[in-house]
Amino acid sequence: MASVIYDEKSRRIAAEMVAAETRQIAQREAQECDCKDGMFPRSPASRRRFLFATGSAASLAGSTAALAQKAPPGAVYFDAPADPTKELGRAVAADGGYGSRSQFETEVRTRFPTANEYTSWSFTPLDKMVGNLTASGLHFERHHGGIPTIDPANHSLVVHGMVGTAKKFSIADLKRFPSVTRKHFIECSGNGLTEWNKPTLKTVQGTHGLLSTSEWTGVQFATIAREVGLKDGSSWVLAEGADAAVMTRSIPIEKMLKDALLVYGQNGEAIRPEQGYPLRLLLPGYEGNTHIKWLRRLEVSDKPFMTREETSKYTDLLANGKARQFSMEMEAKSVITFPSGEMTLPGPGFYNVSGLAWSGRGRVQSVDVSVDGGQSWRPAQLNVTPESVCTVRFSYPWMWDGKAAILQSRCTDETGYIQPTLKQLIAIRGSHGPFGSIYHLNAIQSWAIDETGSVANVHA
Amino acid sequence: MASVIYDEKSRRIAAEMVAAETRQIAQREAQECDCKDGMFPRSPASRRRFLFATGSAASLAGSTAALAQKAPPGAVYFDAPADPTKELGRAVAADGGYGSRSQFETEVRTRFPTANEYTSWSFTPLDKMVGNLTASGLHFERHHGGIPTIDPANHSLVVHGMVGTAKKFSIADLKRFPSVTRKHFIECSGNGLTEWNKPTLKTVQGTHGLLSTSEWTGVQFATIAREVGLKDGSSWVLAEGADAAVMTRSIPIEKMLKDALLVYGQNGEAIRPEQGYPLRLLLPGYEGNTHIKWLRRLEVSDKPFMTREETSKYTDLLANGKARQFSMEMEAKSVITFPSGEMTLPGPGFYNVSGLAWSGRGRVQSVDVSVDGGQSWRPAQLNVTPESVCTVRFSYPWMWDGKAAILQSRCTDETGYIQPTLKQLIAIRGSHGPFGSIYHLNAIQSWAIDETGSVANVHA
Repeated sequence: MASVIYDEKSRRIAAEMVAAETRQIAQREAQECDCKDGMFPRSPASRRRFLFATGSAASLAGSTAALAQKAPPGAVYFDAPADPTKELGRAVAADGGYGSRSQFETEVRTRFPTANEYTSWSFTPLDKMVGNLTASGLHFERHHGGIPTIDPANHSLVVHGMVGTAKKFSIADLKRFPSVTRKHFIECSGNGLTEWNKPTLKTVQGTHGLLSTSEWTGVQFATIAREVGLKDGSSWVLAEGADAAVMTRSIPIEKMLKDALLVYGQNGEAIRPEQGYPLRLLLPGYEGNTHIKWLRRLEVSDKPFMTREETSKYTDLLANGKARQFSMEMEAKSVITFPSGEMTLPGPGFYNVSGLAWSGRGRVQSVDVSVDGGQSWRPAQLNVTPESVCTVRFSYPWMWDGKAAILQSRCTDETGYIQPTLKQLIAIRGSHGPFGSIYHLNAIQSWAIDETGSVANVHA
Repeated sequence: MASVIYDEKSRRIAAEMVAAETRQIAQREAQECDCKDGMFPRSPASRRRFLFATGSAASLAGSTAALAQKAPPGAVYFDAPADPTKELGRAVAADGGYGSRSQFETEVRTRFPTANEYTSWSFTPLDKMVGNLTASGLHFERHHGGIPTIDPANHSLVVHGMVGTAKKFSIADLKRFPSVTRKHFIECSGNGLTEWNKPTLKTVQGTHGLLSTSEWTGVQFATIAREVGLKDGSSWVLAEGADAAVMTRSIPIEKMLKDALLVYGQNGEAIRPEQGYPLRLLLPGYEGNTHIKWLRRLEVSDKPFMTREETSKYTDLLANGKARQFSMEMEAKSVITFPSGEMTLPGPGFYNVSGLAWSGRGRVQSVDVSVDGGQSWRPAQLNVTPESVCTVRFSYPWMWDGKAAILQSRCTDETGYIQPTLKQLIAIRGSHGPFGSIYHLNAIQSWAIDETGSVANVHA
C-alpha cells in the first residue's frame, strides 16, 4: 500500500511503532472485508469501561477518581488503551453533541478566599494556558451577588435619560443590528492587589489571573445611540446590571461612543453566564468592574452618578493622600507565565520564556525581557500581530546556565508608555496596599530562579 | 447615593424598572448592615430549585426537561427567577471551577447519518454562531475510527526516515520548543459534497458546517526539522495518527517547512479530543483530512506514500475523466449564514446580512453580496481584519422590500482568485457528485427568500 522508506537509524528508534502498525494494518484490512460499507465493525461495548461520575464520590474507583473529583458532576471517563490504534475510539454523539475538554485536562480557576462565595472572584490559570485567548471555561470571574440565571427571552435593555426617545430592546432586537467582532482582554482593576507591599501569592494565577482575553461580538453603543438620539449636553451614561448586586457604573459618553460594545457573543457562541449572559457592556481597556454584566439599563445624563463603585470603591489613593477617581483605563502591563512561581526547571539548558503583554490604551508596541533583575533588557518576540487592547503572547529564547537568576518582562504600548517598576509606581501611588490603594498595580513582575531551578515570586 | 436624572419620556418607559431598583437598593443596604464584612447574606438554599439531569429521562420534569435532553448527562439546571436582582445568583465554585455555557444555549453539532457513528462526521451550526471563531464545543468533527482516548503522558511523536537523527518526542518535549499561535480555519474537503447536482441539505449547517476556526498553538515543523536534520532529496513527509484508522497522509516537504504546525493548544487550552488531543498536524489552507489528528509519526521520504486517502479517496474526478490527485489547497469560498436555509424573516425591513469568507491560499481580499441572484454585486463590510488562512466575518446592510429575492456572497482572495459559480465549477470538474467528484465544492451558495420570508437552499 505504501512506498515506505526507512534508514537504519530510524528503524532502530521507530521499530516497535512500525512493526505494530504493520500488524495492525493487516488486521484492519481483514476486518474491513467483513463489513458491507467498507467501514470498521463496531467495537463490542465490553472493550471499553465507562465510569460515570454523578457527583457521588462513592461511585468513583481506580485511577480516574482523582481526575473525576476535579470535574463537573456527570462527566464521563474512559480508560485510555495502551495502544489506541487497536480499539475503536468513542463514537460521534448521535445528535452531534457539544464537545468538552479531555479528561486528562483538569486545570480550574482558583477562588479567592473571600468571606462567602457569592461576592468573590476566581483567577485564570495563566501558568497552564497556551496561546493568546483564554479558554471560555477558564475566564476569570468577579461577582458581587453571585451569577444570576437569566432567560434571554425575558431579558431586555432599557436605554433612557437624556435621549430623544427612550427605548427597550430585547436580545432578539439587539441581534438585528449590525454587529462587530473584536478581540479584547478584560482585566480586573484589583489584579495583583496582594502584591503592593510584599510578594504574597505564589503563582502567576494568583498574581495576574484576573486577566482574560476573548473574541467578543455585539452591537456598538454608537449604533444604539443613533437609534434613541442623544440630547445636547449628555456626557455620562449609567450602566446597570441585573444581578443581585445591581452593579452600576458611570461611563463618559465619549468612551461609550468611541468603542463601547453591547456584547452577546464570546468566542463564537453566546457569552458565558459568568461573563454576563445574555448581555454585557464591553469597554475596551477600562477596568473590569465597568464592563457591566447582565446589562439591563443604560441611562444617559450630564454628570456621573457617583455610585458606590466610584466613591468608596475603585479609587486610587495617591502618595500625597488624595484619591484618584474614575481612573478606569488599564495601563500597560506584562508578565512572564513560563517559568513562573512554584514551577521547577529540571536543569540548565534551553528554555522558551513566554508570557503575555497588554495595554488598555491601544496596541502593545514591544516587550523586553531581563534575566538579571532589570540590569539589562533584550527584546522579546511577539508571537501574534498586536491588536488594539488585546493581549500579546511573547517569547524569549533563554539558555539557563544553572545559576540564580531573576526574570522580568516590560511592556511598551503604542502611546510610548513604559511599564514601571514597583518602586516607580509606589513613588506616585504610595505603598498603601492591600487595604489602602489596592487597584491598578501594573508594575514589572519578578520571578527568582534559584540554583535548584525553583521559581518564586519576589520583589526585585 | 446617585444624582439621577430622568426626562418625562424616559420615566414613562423605564418607570417600573427604576421603581423596582429604588426599593431594592434600600433592601440591599439594609441587608448589608446585618453583615459583618459588608457582603450580602447567603440566600437560603430553598430559594433555588436544582434539577440534576443524570442521563435518566425519568428524572426530568417541568419546563427544563426539553433543555436537559439536549445537554450532556449530569448538567445542572436552575430556575430563572422573574427578577434576578431579587435573589442571590449562583456562587463561585469552591475550587474556581471550569465554566460551561448557559442552560438556555442548546445548539449542537449534527451528525451526518453514516452507516455507523465511528466513521462519521458532525457539522458546526454556522447558522447559530456569531463572530469569527468557532466555539470549541461546536468545532466540526470527522473521524474514521472514533475518537481515541489518549493519555498525553503515554503519547509521543516519532520523526524518522530521511533525517540525520531519528527522534522521539514526548508532549512535554514538544512544549519546551518555541511555539507559535495562529488563527486558522479547517475545512473538510467534503464540505458541501451533497450539493453538486441539486440543492440537498436544507440549512447552512448541512451545506457548509464542515468548517471551523480556532486559535491554534504549537511548534513549527521547521523547528523539529532543524532538530532531526533533513537529508538531501527529502521531499515528502508521511503523517500518521494514533486512532483506530491509523490515518495517514503524504505532505510535500515545502508545505511542511513553510507553515506546518504540530499543535497542542486550541483557543487557549489543550486541543480538544475530537480535534486530535494531545497533538495534531495543522496545515494552514490544506483540506481537513490532511491535518492528521492524534499525530504519532512523521516519516520523511523522497516520494509520496500513496496511501488509501490519496488514491481511492480525496481525489477530484475532472470533466475530462481524469482525476486530480494531491489537490490539497482549499480555494476561496464564502457563505451567507444569516439569513440562511430554514429561517423565516418576520417581515419587510432592515436586515444585517452576515456570513463567513475564507481562502486556503492566504487572506480574504474582499467579499461581494448579491440580492438578485448574481445579476448585480455590491461590496460587503469585513467585520474583522483579514488574517492569512482565516475566516472573515462579513456583513451587508439590506432593506428587504418583501419581494422574492436570491442572496449570494462571493469571495476574492489575495491571489486575485474569485469564488466561482456552480456552473463555472462544473464546467471544469463535471457534475459527478455526490458519488463521483465529491470534494472541493467551493461554488457560490444561493439562498432564495420567498414573499413569506421563508429562506431555502437553491441552485441559481
